[in-house]
Amino acid sequence: MQIIEGGVTAAKGFLAAGTEAGVKYQNRKDMALVFSEAPCRAAAVFTSNVVKAAPVLWDREAVQNSPFVQAVVVNTGIANAGTGSQGRENCEKMAECAGKILGLPKEAVLVGSTGVIGMQLPMERIEAGIEKLAAMKADTKEAGTDAAKAIMTTDTVHKEIAVQLTLSGKTVTLGGMCKGSGMIHPNMCTMLGFVTTDVCISKEMLQKAVSADVVDSFNMISVDGDTSTNDTFVVMANGLAENEEITAEGADYEAFCEALHEVTAYLAKKMAGDGEGATALFECKVTGAANKEDARILAKSVICSSLTKAAVFGHDANWGRILCALGYSGAKFDPENVDIYLESKAGSVHICSGGVACDYSEEEATKILSEPEVTALVNMHMGDSEAVAWGCDLSYDYVKINADYRS
Amino acid sequence: MQIIEGGVTAAKGFLAAGTEAGVKYQNRKDMALVFSEAPCRAAAVFTSNVVKAAPVLWDREAVQNSPFVQAVVVNTGIANAGTGSQGRENCEKMAECAGKILGLPKEAVLVGSTGVIGMQLPMERIEAGIEKLAAMKADTKEAGTDAAKAIMTTDTVHKEIAVQLTLSGKTVTLGGMCKGSGMIHPNMCTMLGFVTTDVCISKEMLQKAVSADVVDSFNMISVDGDTSTNDTFVVMANGLAENEEITAEGADYEAFCEALHEVTAYLAKKMAGDGEGATALFECKVTGAANKEDARILAKSVICSSLTKAAVFGHDANWGRILCALGYSGAKFDPENVDIYLESKAGSVHICSGGVACDYSEEEATKILSEPEVTALVNMHMGDSEAVAWGCDLSYDYVKINADYRS
Repeated sequence: MQIIEGGVTAAKGFLAAGTEAGVKYQNRKDMALVFSEAPCRAAAVFTSNVVKAAPVLWDREAVQNSPFVQAVVVNTGIANAGTGSQGRENCEKMAECAGKILGLPKEAVLVGSTGVIGMQLPMERIEAGIEKLAAMKADTKEAGTDAAKAIMTTDTVHKEIAVQLTLSGKTVTLGGMCKGSGMIHPNMCTMLGFVTTDVCISKEMLQKAVSADVVDSFNMISVDGDTSTNDTFVVMANGLAENEEITAEGADYEAFCEALHEVTAYLAKKMAGDGEGATALFECKVTGAANKEDARILAKSVICSSLTKAAVFGHDANWGRILCALGYSGAKFDPENVDIYLESKAGSVHICSGGVACDYSEEEATKILSEPEVTALVNMHMGDSEAVAWGCDLSYDYVKINADYRS
Repeated sequence: MQIIEGGVTAAKGFLAAGTEAGVKYQNRKDMALVFSEAPCRAAAVFTSNVVKAAPVLWDREAVQNSPFVQAVVVNTGIANAGTGSQGRENCEKMAECAGKILGLPKEAVLVGSTGVIGMQLPMERIEAGIEKLAAMKADTKEAGTDAAKAIMTTDTVHKEIAVQLTLSGKTVTLGGMCKGSGMIHPNMCTMLGFVTTDVCISKEMLQKAVSADVVDSFNMISVDGDTSTNDTFVVMANGLAENEEITAEGADYEAFCEALHEVTAYLAKKMAGDGEGATALFECKVTGAANKEDARILAKSVICSSLTKAAVFGHDANWGRILCALGYSGAKFDPENVDIYLESKAGSVHICSGGVACDYSEEEATKILSEPEVTALVNMHMGDSEAVAWGCDLSYDYVKINADYRS
């Protein structure tokens, strides 16, 4: 497997576009299209929030019951959540409009929306945007990047990646993009994430791969603990790589899962590091946990702690907050067996041994914490299980961005 | 029942003191003593954090197994958590030192510590502080206030209250104080809270009253979602009111519970409103829930949402975030039956009806949100259960306070 340039247009037969539709933002791309020349099998996971956005309900139905899907149309600015029956009608109209122009049944079109909750979509501008997107769509790298940029809200960078591997002598490609910066605490999947691939795989095995993957990718990140109404992660596979169809577990399935995780872990990490107001990606790696589930719970508790996040922002090696967050995670352990290290490009420092302070240099710890990517490495000394979670620091700008998001 | 002036010295036979011991802070009171002239029955609840501070372990043992308790000694600045066996020895020394001076067995002395995790206590200064406290202790209102001020850390106001009621013809008094501003997400009880009372009640009924009470008082507040290592709530009852001993449920027990809740709800609310960096107390009242537990979960989810808290700080009526927080709380409901109102001294506005936006005035909503106490009133239309939770807004100052707390 190797990482290649590009994103959602990297795999065979996938076209994309991004355009300015003026849905809510001005002077920036705010609508995107992904289109496959061949029908796709799709697998997806959606938000566990009881309040589900209209497009989440639409996509869930389409992924489960449509014979195939072939396009995704996305708008930013307005989430189409908390919009009742009118919101559901608008969502269906988006799929219908795109389907008509692209020559597809509406059930083959997935819809994504992200932005403010509680506002209705301006349907004229949305429909005009879809027409532009359909006319512009292309299979170039630039078109994929345009789409990745168009789905951003408070994101400061676009997020895309592509990888290639060989299955049964054929080159298979996966490309992905995602957006997400605030209201990020995915539970089943993340805000909006799309992976396209030309792999040939049965729908059942594709869903199995996706469901297994998110547990250790998108579900292991958090920006602010708020699980969105719109979390959607979709993988579309059009089979154009012509590898022998993956229909069961085995070497090909494992290789595909590994490639998928390369894509999703990259996107998840990128999203965490670009959390609203973030100045640093904050990673917590837990080793020596009693079991995998405990490892996940412990790692995620640390990256979710507001106090720890604020300390990272202040480059303050306040390891007591890390120990505290491990303690209230719900996992059982003996605090006096815990070792904590802080690591970054600037070095590594052993900061807590057996639950009490080591004799470390504050100056060195501050230097380590001043890097844009910081890791807290925790050894529980209870077993062999490991997990990694990704978050970001808590800064003034997080408050600023969210105190007047709607204005 | 009536509210009277004073705090922990209001009930018969209770003395208190607060002094500067220079534990970590300079030029402010940082040690407190509460002393009863008569032996007390005590009941308590402690943090559910796996990482428990040394004084939590000490107090749990003393409240469960000592024949009586008669004093509490508290320091701020250093939490005596993450301090291992040396921390446990230091904690025992604090009790031993206070016991010697006050003429009590060490097991009759409870200990409270709050502040930075991971540092050892400066025992010489602590012991000198205890000597000063013992010499100063008095039954005056001022002495109670001194103690309430001495237990503050990042708190901006001290928190105390007292109430009186009549039981079997005798006047019974309860007085309380607490501290807490950051790392506040109590799970079983709060940071440090102490209630003194001269009521005569069996130890069993006292513990029953305390355990039942915290579910709707201290456990319903949150500042930052971080459950502390030091959460301690203790009620000491010395029986000097000479009411007929409460040994079972009945009118007297109910009246006592009501008075206790008056004290604890006041202290809890005061703590939430004084959350680190807070500019407003943010209350969420859930009505019409299917059951009491759902009502609590829903209310607490709203006041814990970082995005909702940031919107309150920005006086932005972003009700979608409230709906979203209800949605990921874990309680099941139909979003299209939910009504949301925003209320404060400045008025009330119906902002969301049946899960979608009402036609409200943004100007009016902003006015309502600009008050120092703001309520989100949520009606689930599913049953008769209600609950109230208290939090605060998320401001720049929360980040500022916690980015350099240790320096």
